[in-house]
Amino acid sequence: MADKVLVYSRFPKTMMARFAERFELLDTGGKPAREMFSADRLGGIRALLTAGGSPLGAEAMDLFPKLGTIVCYGTGYDGVDLKAAASRNIAVGHSPGANAASVADIAMTLMLATTRRILVADQYVRSGDWAASKPSPMMRPQAGMPGRRIGVYGMGEIGRKIAARCAAFESEIGYFSRSKYDLPYQYFPSLEALADWCSVLMIAVRAGAETRHVVDAEILGRLGADGYVVNISRGSVIDEKALVAALTDKTIAGAGLDVFEKEPHAPDALTALPNVVFAPHIGGHTLESHVAMQNCVLANLTAFFEGRPLPYAVKSA
Amino acid sequence: MADKVLVYSRFPKTMMARFAERFELLDTGGKPAREMFSADRLGGIRALLTAGGSPLGAEAMDLFPKLGTIVCYGTGYDGVDLKAAASRNIAVGHSPGANAASVADIAMTLMLATTRRILVADQYVRSGDWAASKPSPMMRPQAGMPGRRIGVYGMGEIGRKIAARCAAFESEIGYFSRSKYDLPYQYFPSLEALADWCSVLMIAVRAGAETRHVVDAEILGRLGADGYVVNISRGSVIDEKALVAALTDKTIAGAGLDVFEKEPHAPDALTALPNVVFAPHIGGHTLESHVAMQNCVLANLTAFFEGRPLPYAVKSA
Repeated sequence: MADKVLVYSRFPKTMMARFAERFELLDTGGKPAREMFSADRLGGIRALLTAGGSPLGAEAMDLFPKLGTIVCYGTGYDGVDLKAAASRNIAVGHSPGANAASVADIAMTLMLATTRRILVADQYVRSGDWAASKPSPMMRPQAGMPGRRIGVYGMGEIGRKIAARCAAFESEIGYFSRSKYDLPYQYFPSLEALADWCSVLMIAVRAGAETRHVVDAEILGRLGADGYVVNISRGSVIDEKALVAALTDKTIAGAGLDVFEKEPHAPDALTALPNVVFAPHIGGHTLESHVAMQNCVLANLTAFFEGRPLPYAVKSA
Repeated sequence: MADKVLVYSRFPKTMMARFAERFELLDTGGKPAREMFSADRLGGIRALLTAGGSPLGAEAMDLFPKLGTIVCYGTGYDGVDLKAAASRNIAVGHSPGANAASVADIAMTLMLATTRRILVADQYVRSGDWAASKPSPMMRPQAGMPGRRIGVYGMGEIGRKIAARCAAFESEIGYFSRSKYDLPYQYFPSLEALADWCSVLMIAVRAGAETRHVVDAEILGRLGADGYVVNISRGSVIDEKALVAALTDKTIAGAGLDVFEKEPHAPDALTALPNVVFAPHIGGHTLESHVAMQNCVLANLTAFFEGRPLPYAVKSA
């Protein structure tokens, strides 16, 4: 009989196909597990597959008395209470780096689309305003990439790939992270100092309690009227209300956002703004990165059921 | 008295400000010069400032019997009849490379926006469809940049900058141009061979009679159903009717277009398509590149009026 895996979050069926070949999937579709399956069936569950951002605390873990592993599809694991897992001897796994290029690329896409105002540009052509030579203040020349100061917040795999891409655009790169690395970019000792220096703040930091709302009204103010913020990490890192205010009163010039505080909901006050480019959390959403993330999930689940340590375990803080 | 310069094309006043400080500008606003100024005034004109894409043939040159120079604002000079100019001893100048980074960046912006479907993504979030978990076939995962085969057509300054940027995205780079260069990219001996190989064709070739409609139905067919074309050169390089057909019947997956056959008009059949990202010829449209182009224009005009050769002369074919 195939090993059972409970699918805790809502995933498209196509993303589960390779797991279904190897395991018996109990798919909750993101609904409460107790509504979907009998206590008897849940009682036998040893492995759980989740999206790293889905809240998964002690109470949820206790629904599954035999639970031995929580495997996150993707890099993030911010929804998982790591202490609660550790105290229950539940191994937590993820897919480190598997989607780093794809996420870095959406960061670049959002930065370029925002700074070059591609939504406005596209609409200007489609509407016929260009053909009618109708003036568009939004289409005035803006600063380009050469010499632009890009501040990367967080220098993990995604941050490094963002920095490498920006360097090819002849931009200057600075970064802030807990550690200073041997990298050819200028290190700033604080997020404040980075925000003072840069004109585009790329948020690539790992999300968690300590990074919640660190990009607040003060940091946005330091970016200035020509400043942009791009977030491909987690919505929790930005104080979304402060962001709406900064964009509305032109404290900053624009934003590119792939993530939001309460997904899949982007507040109306935010989506009404013309100087933002939105994406529905598709950072890791390419064919190759799904394959790479699935490889990590499969390796983690296989190792667990064979009694081996997870090859892609989350390193507990 | 300040030297006189006739402004032959339509330019925003802000782009002319630095020239107005040094020269007396006779600005046609893009209208026929004879309608705007007396024959007497035109007769004294020795220098003409134009957009390189504006048609400027023998007949137009003969309106100005004392014409000694045609200075193009920007890199292109495809609108200028070089033979007619040469036979009249008119020196033609341009701004080589001044906007190369800016144009390469719009190429990258269009490629990323098209392949990552950022217009659809933005609309998916803004419309509330994401919040409603409404499925969107356009939002299915697509191939990303790592390992993607990017074909660069034309290896001048813009082509090289596009290639360098794509390399940072971990893509494979191939190119076709008249000459093979000592570059770390795969050379293809024909556009056909490049189109067979690549999934994104970046058009960065200098436009002219010999490149008119070279990207035709056959070349587009070779790109295939997963293929994209991005054009930041001139609209004339693509057979626009063939492009509309290829995009409509899904012969190719999408396109990113900054240039069109008859600017500022993009055909309705084209602008109705969802799998295209449009820009109103803003490739060179950044603050730095305008400054750099203006520097070239000023250097050319100053040299001309001082009786020196143009420092940024077009090398006649």
